Amino acid sequence: MALIALSRRLRRTPFSEGVEAAGVKGYTVYNRMLLPTVFRTVQEDYRHLKEAVQLWDVACERQVELRGPDATRLMQMLTPRDLRNMQVGQCYYVPIVDETGGMLNDPVAVKLAEDRWWISIADSDLLLWVKGIAYGYRLDVLVDEPDVSPLGVQGPKADDVMADVFGDAVRDIRFFRFAMLEFQGRKLAVARSGYSKQGGFEIYVEGSDIGMPLWNALMEAGKKHDIHAGCPNLIERIEGGLLSYGNDMTDDNTPHECGLGKFCNTHSAIGCVGRDALLRVAKEGPVRQIRAVEIHGDAVPPCDRLWPIMVGDKQVGNISSAAYSPDFATNVSIGMVRMTHWDEGSEVDVITPAGVRAATVRETFWI
Amino acid sequence: MALIALSRRLRRTPFSEGVEAAGVKGYTVYNRMLLPTVFRTVQEDYRHLKEAVQLWDVACERQVELRGPDATRLMQMLTPRDLRNMQVGQCYYVPIVDETGGMLNDPVAVKLAEDRWWISIADSDLLLWVKGIAYGYRLDVLVDEPDVSPLGVQGPKADDVMADVFGDAVRDIRFFRFAMLEFQGRKLAVARSGYSKQGGFEIYVEGSDIGMPLWNALMEAGKKHDIHAGCPNLIERIEGGLLSYGNDMTDDNTPHECGLGKFCNTHSAIGCVGRDALLRVAKEGPVRQIRAVEIHGDAVPPCDRLWPIMVGDKQVGNISSAAYSPDFATNVSIGMVRMTHWDEGSEVDVITPAGVRAATVRETFWI
Repeated sequence: MALIALSRRLRRTPFSEGVEAAGVKGYTVYNRMLLPTVFRTVQEDYRHLKEAVQLWDVACERQVELRGPDATRLMQMLTPRDLRNMQVGQCYYVPIVDETGGMLNDPVAVKLAEDRWWISIADSDLLLWVKGIAYGYRLDVLVDEPDVSPLGVQGPKADDVMADVFGDAVRDIRFFRFAMLEFQGRKLAVARSGYSKQGGFEIYVEGSDIGMPLWNALMEAGKKHDIHAGCPNLIERIEGGLLSYGNDMTDDNTPHECGLGKFCNTHSAIGCVGRDALLRVAKEGPVRQIRAVEIHGDAVPPCDRLWPIMVGDKQVGNISSAAYSPDFATNVSIGMVRMTHWDEGSEVDVITPAGVRAATVRETFWI
Repeated sequence: MALIALSRRLRRTPFSEGVEAAGVKGYTVYNRMLLPTVFRTVQEDYRHLKEAVQLWDVACERQVELRGPDATRLMQMLTPRDLRNMQVGQCYYVPIVDETGGMLNDPVAVKLAEDRWWISIADSDLLLWVKGIAYGYRLDVLVDEPDVSPLGVQGPKADDVMADVFGDAVRDIRFFRFAMLEFQGRKLAVARSGYSKQGGFEIYVEGSDIGMPLWNALMEAGKKHDIHAGCPNLIERIEGGLLSYGNDMTDDNTPHECGLGKFCNTHSAIGCVGRDALLRVAKEGPVRQIRAVEIHGDAVPPCDRLWPIMVGDKQVGNISSAAYSPDFATNVSIGMVRMTHWDEGSEVDVITPAGVRAATVRETFWI
């Protein structure tokens, strides 16, 4: 890891004080905001996430709010996923594409009301795209970034901790649904969702002023469950096949290449930007696609750039995320692989900074 | 400084190898790309920048390219600065605002041809705004991020180093103009510009493959002028009043608040987004504005969040960037100050993490 120079531009969050007090050891920058990456070690954090419960400062999942008569029309313009049956209280994972079908973001859309949405974004200024479209189409909608900062409670004991603070109603929240629950007199959207496969919640904390009071209340309630400050864990998210925008995909990629074709209802999502391009892709299929790739041998170094996937002298893809998994006793990784070699069991080579490594393409992630 | 976890998402540049070989000690993240912040110490880098010449990896100034019949129309839609008299070969500093007059970026526009522009951006995904507007207005223009990475040569000896590599033609390039000059058979735009007040150039390196060859050629030519790898210097840029988007201004601010009213030709920049809002602002004037503020006493700590500017119990502004200046033997800073206290010589207090400090509002920066 290198050193990072702090400035106002790399925004602090409503939970930064708590994160610092918990002894954060490293950050990344996400949506020009600080996102912790490690508290004890990545391996200790990983083990603890799978066994107990963690509090995650994911305020960097900024919200784009759409309000007004054209909010739902605009939301449907933004994504090829058909939103017509989506209910208030639901969250949808939605690919967002440009006119060529290139991925601009892979956020979660939160339907607050018929005329009010939040888009909980990955790492790109989606706000600017949404504002540009709304302006260009003269839509009757307000688009801005509200003072809303997600706080994650992740891990097998998340329900117990959350029930202590928000009441047993949290136990009834279904996956990718949210309920409006009270904390200190404020109603907050509490969703069963999060960037891990260990289960848990994301609280959309509206109002920075209650950030630390809520952080402290959850820390207190979690004591008996061994709660600890945590963060999205590199190893766990690769094992689970959770993609990272900017790492595993960029605007060069279509949703189909990212394995997100199932979220593209290109025939019924009428009016969405990029539909023509995606109809073509849906018909012909992609020629490369995201795959789980097992890299054999010792633990690989951090993956800070694309690692070529080779078969002989021919490049057939790239690895974009990789880490050594203690549970699977191998290097787990995510790569984009050409169709000639994307079948289960394909044997390939990966050029890592630690030398060329044998690797095997898998059908599924480590779940 | 904290530690940063590297990943593909925080993009390396065509010059990263050179930066690492030169012993970079810290980074920030800018447009999701690594930007060095210190090589020896910020103070040593500062002294050297003012006395010699430095090579800067400013690849993070990504380009938004506009190509096609509507390129110039679109460029004028993006900024309130009147572009009608701008010639091919010129660079203009252009505020970019949204429909409410809020700053989205403060880039440099580079006019390559009547139908081809680069926008050399500050830290926000301006590409998404430009694509959204182009799509919404169905303009006949291609908008994308080309493989172009600026490389800065800054400092009093920049002309000599550049002349060695590009020939004496560089000496004739006027401020904020560029010439197309050859390196290894490739024509590159070489502009007299840069994010310091010490003079110098920015080379728009088109094609990542020639990044390191050019870096090495400039390092070799600069040996006799004591060239060293460098980067935008916090102290020097505050002294010179060079604003930083995301630090000293955000989309909350109008250009007039940022002291950029002189770049807004709101009556003649017909068709620009935000014109109605800015006409109002131009007429009434802003109620707060960017000011140089001298903070008395010992060196202040790093400014990683807004510091309130107080007069008694009343807040009259915020400091957004601050550093101790060896040359002026005081803390130089940039703040946004309400009109009640923005006059030269206003005595105020600044709440810093090191305690409350007396401070004085200045009319001009330290130049």
